[in-house]
Amino acid sequence: MSGIGRHLLSIEDLDRAGIERILDRAESFAEVSGREIKKVPALRGRTVVNLFYEASTRTSSSFELAAKRLSADVVSVRSIGSSVEKGESLKDTVQTLSAYDPAAIVIRSPHVGAAALVAGWTAASVINAGDGKHEHPTQALLDVFTLRRRLGSLEGASIWIVGDVLHSRVARSNILALRRMGARVTVCGPPTLLPREIEALGCEAKPSLEGLSQADVVYVLRMQQERMREAFVPSLREYVQRYQITSTHLDARQLLMHPGPVNRGVELSADAIDSPRALISDQVKAGVAVRMAVLYELLVGSPVLEAVA
Amino acid sequence: MSGIGRHLLSIEDLDRAGIERILDRAESFAEVSGREIKKVPALRGRTVVNLFYEASTRTSSSFELAAKRLSADVVSVRSIGSSVEKGESLKDTVQTLSAYDPAAIVIRSPHVGAAALVAGWTAASVINAGDGKHEHPTQALLDVFTLRRRLGSLEGASIWIVGDVLHSRVARSNILALRRMGARVTVCGPPTLLPREIEALGCEAKPSLEGLSQADVVYVLRMQQERMREAFVPSLREYVQRYQITSTHLDARQLLMHPGPVNRGVELSADAIDSPRALISDQVKAGVAVRMAVLYELLVGSPVLEAVA
Amino acid sequence: MSGIGRHLLSIEDLDRAGIERILDRAESFAEVSGREIKKVPALRGRTVVNLFYEASTRTSSSFELAAKRLSADVVSVRSIGSSVEKGESLKDTVQTLSAYDPAAIVIRSPHVGAAALVAGWTAASVINAGDGKHEHPTQALLDVFTLRRRLGSLEGASIWIVGDVLHSRVARSNILALRRMGARVTVCGPPTLLPREIEALGCEAKPSLEGLSQADVVYVLRMQQERMREAFVPSLREYVQRYQITSTHLDARQLLMHPGPVNRGVELSADAIDSPRALISDQVKAGVAVRMAVLYELLVGSPVLEAVA
Repeated sequence: MSGIGRHLLSIEDLDRAGIERILDRAESFAEVSGREIKKVPALRGRTVVNLFYEASTRTSSSFELAAKRLSADVVSVRSIGSSVEKGESLKDTVQTLSAYDPAAIVIRSPHVGAAALVAGWTAASVINAGDGKHEHPTQALLDVFTLRRRLGSLEGASIWIVGDVLHSRVARSNILALRRMGARVTVCGPPTLLPREIEALGCEAKPSLEGLSQADVVYVLRMQQERMREAFVPSLREYVQRYQITSTHLDARQLLMHPGPVNRGVELSADAIDSPRALISDQVKAGVAVRMAVLYELLVGSPVLEAVA
Repeated sequence: MSGIGRHLLSIEDLDRAGIERILDRAESFAEVSGREIKKVPALRGRTVVNLFYEASTRTSSSFELAAKRLSADVVSVRSIGSSVEKGESLKDTVQTLSAYDPAAIVIRSPHVGAAALVAGWTAASVINAGDGKHEHPTQALLDVFTLRRRLGSLEGASIWIVGDVLHSRVARSNILALRRMGARVTVCGPPTLLPREIEALGCEAKPSLEGLSQADVVYVLRMQQERMREAFVPSLREYVQRYQITSTHLDARQLLMHPGPVNRGVELSADAIDSPRALISDQVKAGVAVRMAVLYELLVGSPVLEAVA
Repeated sequence: MSGIGRHLLSIEDLDRAGIERILDRAESFAEVSGREIKKVPALRGRTVVNLFYEASTRTSSSFELAAKRLSADVVSVRSIGSSVEKGESLKDTVQTLSAYDPAAIVIRSPHVGAAALVAGWTAASVINAGDGKHEHPTQALLDVFTLRRRLGSLEGASIWIVGDVLHSRVARSNILALRRMGARVTVCGPPTLLPREIEALGCEAKPSLEGLSQADVVYVLRMQQERMREAFVPSLREYVQRYQITSTHLDARQLLMHPGPVNRGVELSADAIDSPRALISDQVKAGVAVRMAVLYELLVGSPVLEAVA
């Protein structure tokens, strides 16, 4: 048993063997995505529902394409232009969509715990594509996939996660996944934006960039502009001064990551984004292969790799 | 000749044999939808256009999935984000879309008679997915399908339709379809929400729930909140008191239906929705199979059932 | 070598041989679109991204259907409901979508030069589906396709383009394409709506409809209502009086075109729209075949026609 259940709601659903099985499968799908005919028949005639209650380009199009490259029929429901506007509850919407007997429901919601609720209302496999500030497990998996490709192993690697850790589902899922893979994680940002219980997750917390040179990987979070208004940060100018990562922070050995979309000139300087140390486009590229792997592992499971090709 | 023409604009387009042929076909597609590979090649390479001028999740996704499971290419046009915003007229939009030579156009519109207009402007088969308060024939067909599965035959069955009958296209199409199938229909609701000419359709009208115990099926309509503002109903509180269906209204023999989405606690109590008498999710599930059958019967027609499988 | 590069950003990317190759290919796809199974496997397993930053029905659905009839997987991203709302820059969006390794990106933007920028950021073939008031090359190709079918050759034909030439990407692309094909082009409209440098493009300019009888083809542009507010035109009433084309302007030999959607009763009278001289629905119909041809020529290229069928 390698730790992959029916749903992917949280990285906590996966043990290290489960993560590694998904990453291995993703390697085979990355190879498929490099072919001219980027398609396998694995999910032919099965239905994948994408249910997005928040604006999204990269995550929604990445899941949509992953499902299509597995030959599934995809139905996308967005809060805009749907009955969700009529005040239909999430439960009713999920029960409606479940009546189509989908193989999987991919759900993004602004509410913590939404994906777990959905899993209680449907016989489909549920994949959490982001639930409020809680988790975004496929983002963490694609980040770990990207790093494993570069570093071979994450065992003992030092990863600094910089920025608004408090409100970041990406940070939370990454901390869990990186720890599972044996990495050492340091979180860094204004104390108002670091959760109090962060050290319980096995991280070190730092209030400044001092010591960043020891990191193997600098993972920069998106700064939500609204945090300024909410007074978590004194001013944008001060934030940029104290926490913006520029290419002068990085030596030739360090890798730079960001979940996108980047606020150019806020959390990252333009020269850092465009530096050869930046893995940002590798991360996006990994998204389709990793999501194909997650869909495959949840819905098809154990058959040997040859069956995919 | 079994009463299925080129379009499905109204239940009046179908005689009893036509309805039964669609229901029989839907049985075979329900079987397809129960398979792992929920797909038949019946409409491969043909185009189905979904043209939705009103917010909708269940109807639009149900038609989209029905067309995809028949292997059609589907193009969905919504009023949001389309030239409809530029003030393009319905006629121009339909003529544009017709130039693609679609096999079918599925149209939902807030205007009574919109589907019939569309049928005059295109060589495609037109399916009315709801035109104002006029008709919603595929909803009625899926309701009759659901009931036929439970009751065997609708001949002589007593169906009570409760709520805002006046503004309900679902009520209108169901009355016509249920009558065609030999059922006895009673409509029940505040007198301001029952159409004056209702008895001409062969129904009985009741101003209160008294006598509901004789019904075999209680079909509850969605209460549009805006009717309160328009003063058709004195107050939500009074409406709930007089017309809300709770599990205490239902005996072990009676079936409960609702077209969805339900206003929990308004026209239906939570315990009624979740009771084993409720066929609400069966209705939604029937939606895909019945819409596959309608598309199939309009576009492919008479070939024997074996050709579908 | 017949003048078709990797992208289609402007008609200037095509020489006459290139245009003719696309039109010839479009003839074969028009034949496919007339079959019951309107589908060829040319782009199976390849990905086409539609990125639309402006409301559109006909262009977006036409490209979507063209890609689907070539068996491509299509991902559509609109500014509504996507990260574009979060202020993500065009560059970031394109780099994200490029990470999926699409074969083509179709882009519509309100900004002049957007498609050329996109071409600098991606390895995909880029097709300009309209960039501000600059160009809309596939519209011009489908117009030339429609005319070539009617006239055999455009060599020496006289085409009048009537209306707001100044703000029209359709006018600009058509002038270039029609000139390439040997036609004589006259532009006609209020002097405030004719670009100063128009005669440098090899056109004649006319401030009134006088002389229209010598035209073989009258191509009427859509009048954007907002131009009235911007005071380019004294009043709608005066514009209609001086420039509206009615059936009395057209003799039995002249053809009428319009890129749609038409403002009925503004630039065209209802009787002109519905006259047998009008090619408006032929233009729309040509759209799918021509866009299939453009996708095919950019992505598959030289193989002989038989390979398509």
